[in-house]
Amino acid sequence: MNKVIVLYKRPVGKAELGDFKTNIEEMPTADDGEVLLKTIYVSVDPYLRGRMNDAESYIPPFELNKPLQSGIIAEVVDSNNTLFKIGDFVLGNLEWKEYQVSDGKGLRIIPNDPAYLTAYLGVLGMTGLTAYLGLTQIGLPKPGETLVVSGAAGAVGSIVGQVGKLLGCRVVGITGSDEKVQLLKSKFHFDEAINYKNTVDLTRSINAACPNGVDIYFDNVGGKISDDVLNNINKHARIPLCGAISLYNDATPVLGPYIQPVLVKKSALIQGFIVSDFAAQFPEATRQLTEWLMAGKLTYHETIYKGFDHIPQAFMGLFEGSNEGKMVVKI
Amino acid sequence: MNKVIVLYKRPVGKAELGDFKTNIEEMPTADDGEVLLKTIYVSVDPYLRGRMNDAESYIPPFELNKPLQSGIIAEVVDSNNTLFKIGDFVLGNLEWKEYQVSDGKGLRIIPNDPAYLTAYLGVLGMTGLTAYLGLTQIGLPKPGETLVVSGAAGAVGSIVGQVGKLLGCRVVGITGSDEKVQLLKSKFHFDEAINYKNTVDLTRSINAACPNGVDIYFDNVGGKISDDVLNNINKHARIPLCGAISLYNDATPVLGPYIQPVLVKKSALIQGFIVSDFAAQFPEATRQLTEWLMAGKLTYHETIYKGFDHIPQAFMGLFEGSNEGKMVVKI
Repeated sequence: MNKVIVLYKRPVGKAELGDFKTNIEEMPTADDGEVLLKTIYVSVDPYLRGRMNDAESYIPPFELNKPLQSGIIAEVVDSNNTLFKIGDFVLGNLEWKEYQVSDGKGLRIIPNDPAYLTAYLGVLGMTGLTAYLGLTQIGLPKPGETLVVSGAAGAVGSIVGQVGKLLGCRVVGITGSDEKVQLLKSKFHFDEAINYKNTVDLTRSINAACPNGVDIYFDNVGGKISDDVLNNINKHARIPLCGAISLYNDATPVLGPYIQPVLVKKSALIQGFIVSDFAAQFPEATRQLTEWLMAGKLTYHETIYKGFDHIPQAFMGLFEGSNEGKMVVKI
Repeated sequence: MNKVIVLYKRPVGKAELGDFKTNIEEMPTADDGEVLLKTIYVSVDPYLRGRMNDAESYIPPFELNKPLQSGIIAEVVDSNNTLFKIGDFVLGNLEWKEYQVSDGKGLRIIPNDPAYLTAYLGVLGMTGLTAYLGLTQIGLPKPGETLVVSGAAGAVGSIVGQVGKLLGCRVVGITGSDEKVQLLKSKFHFDEAINYKNTVDLTRSINAACPNGVDIYFDNVGGKISDDVLNNINKHARIPLCGAISLYNDATPVLGPYIQPVLVKKSALIQGFIVSDFAAQFPEATRQLTEWLMAGKLTYHETIYKGFDHIPQAFMGLFEGSNEGKMVVKI
């Protein structure tokens, strides 16, 4: 028998365990042209929360009582498709199932190197591309500039900071615990890191950590933290807007001060993006990230939950800051 | 004797007459290298409100009990400077004085053509450059796209709309009276115009006026009106952020829904600017605007107050929507 996790109810505010349901189905079999896949690693990402709403966005919403989907690494355990052989490892946007069949469309065979397998969900996958391309294409970093990253210890943030350092920026991270502050400084080489939960006046803390002001703000969180960064931006600041995790769970819009006046005053640019906006740059970005990774100039951290049944908890943990680096579930 | 208007108190919220004071001074005389200028036209502009606060911005604040300044057209009535002769008309950032001396720095001699004299404060001056360069450099309009302009009947907005039409866009204006709606459609050739004061649900009105969504939003106002436009933007929308007049008078920040989620969802770009960000493009922009103006493809409207003493009222009128097109005071 085969376990499948479906969206049972649309979350109101924060997702809860009861919004998910595990169904037991017959084990599928691969027909002509199909492969049978065994799920090995499941990526959970904040953007999935948006797909759980019944609202138009850049991708269609998940349907109720249908399996959820995300980036998954799977092993080919049966194949009636000449492009794949048993034992291949593949990456794809797949369903939250222990086993599933696929016609092979959208699957990418990846090297079966256990040391880097999960990297294809992270630094060498959408996460790394999002960090690298958002920073370079919108942030336009120049050596000596100051880069502030929110959600700095997350999957994207921890790569943004390292890429910023590699490109010559002074890098300051904002994160949510003292342990993560240490991680950012010791493992990811951030120049400074701030625990926003432990700071009375975040605007002043950012000011102190950025004596030359903020030239680039890579924003993963939105909301009040971003207001405090905006209070410190320099003229002609660039703000790649990757996510707004602090606002995703709210059923009604959260209010804050309008940001238009500071944008006018500073001739600043905010640009929202998703990684596919820069699809044309994927090959070059992947080449650069791989080179840095192999040269030991780029590192990554993972938080690995274990067991198929824990996928919902791992997802919910993203909004509690339970992860350091990329959050994945090992089946 | 010579009248001078100084900033007497820093406005709290809306500026009031009591924030300004008229002083009587001795008539100045031109020393070696100087010219004596007689003020003919005074430009009043929303950005001046920001300079009345004691706050850092892109230009220093006005000082208390010192004359206010703005764009002024003056006549040279005495000259000890070989670059200027009596009878020349000049444009400069000058003080609110009936007469003043200048060493000539920053003054530009303009043609003494009564039909176009005030155009140098408007369509052929900073106003026109702001409209043209903000739209073309940030908005990147393409034929067939939909452009929405707020503050559409104002000095900048009325030019933005016309330039948008000349570049092949469908143009929709948002303004504050039925008279201005008529003006936008009949004189400035907007495809549609909406009186936001007369609309129950502005988001829906914009939706109805923009069946293909909003590709470019030229924002002069910020605040709630902009929220309603953001509800209608297309993927990859561009938002040149020229001003936020709806928020300039508030002593404490106005709250509204955070805009980060919609920017992420739509991969949209907001960029604040002041016209000097694009100084390199001034010659080309001036050439284009002059060509269109002379060819009758571009028109402008002015609201002219009369008399030196009415400069403060004209300025305050900007925030009441008392102007159609450029607001100037004829001395």
